[in-house]
Amino acid sequence: MTEPRWLDDRRQRSWRAYLAMNSQLTARLHRQLQADSGLSLADFDVLVQLTGRPDGRVRVLELARALQWEKSRLSHHIARMQRRGLVAREDCPDDARGAYTVLTPLGRQAIEQAAPRHVETVRALFFDQLTAEHVDALQAIAHRVLSRLEDNAQP
Amino acid sequence: MTEPRWLDDRRQRSWRAYLAMNSQLTARLHRQLQADSGLSLADFDVLVQLTGRPDGRVRVLELARALQWEKSRLSHHIARMQRRGLVAREDCPDDARGAYTVLTPLGRQAIEQAAPRHVETVRALFFDQLTAEHVDALQAIAHRVLSRLEDNAQP
Repeated sequence: MTEPRWLDDRRQRSWRAYLAMNSQLTARLHRQLQADSGLSLADFDVLVQLTGRPDGRVRVLELARALQWEKSRLSHHIARMQRRGLVAREDCPDDARGAYTVLTPLGRQAIEQAAPRHVETVRALFFDQLTAEHVDALQAIAHRVLSRLEDNAQP
Repeated sequence: MTEPRWLDDRRQRSWRAYLAMNSQLTARLHRQLQADSGLSLADFDVLVQLTGRPDGRVRVLELARALQWEKSRLSHHIARMQRRGLVAREDCPDDARGAYTVLTPLGRQAIEQAAPRHVETVRALFFDQLTAEHVDALQAIAHRVLSRLEDNAQP
């Protein structure tokens, strides 16, 4: 194998800072959400997907794709949310593509209560720190990386 | 409670893109690392922390802080890595601050084998998509957000 192209200092600093921001911001948003509403960030992400559908329901496989979670992780998570009454499962016996996950009234209430504080926290910790140019640069960066990720299944 | 300040379209798009990039990039880096070396991204992060210390050892509490993981999650993870021989535990009976996690020769070998492919993947998926201005903007964004996060413990 040829000598790996290690990151230069500039990229190394940028990468380390990006990773630190991700993990610390995620941890903080998670703690805030838990303290305010008893939801985890993962619960919140699932509920956001469901509220984004006109009839509040989505197939498990589609949900896994939208969230980019492994199927087994999602199944376990959905089962736990079901036991807490946040979602329900609806089987479709005549359709091999399997079950729907459905938003319950309790699930809708939970996210409606949680969302205002969550968005305030996202503003306070994130957007209030950035210029308009930063906001646009971040979107451009994310779109470029996402295009590359969608281009092929393996690097 | 007053009407929440929902994100405007520009910030909403930027936030969604940022979240999607994080989750998809993390998932891809994790799969690549697993396929190439059998390490998870979490294993990799722990091993990076250990190789960054002159004597390859760190206290569990300090490791939790550096990684921004909850203590219980880290303890479980370290126990699994110990069973695989990647790290060892060293107690210090005369010190109430507790045990060290120590890099083993097998752990060092694992990260030395995994790192070159991992950095190539980070380049291919991430840095090769960005301009020098993007790299600097990302670092600026991350530093601003991290400063805010360090400023106070709660939003």
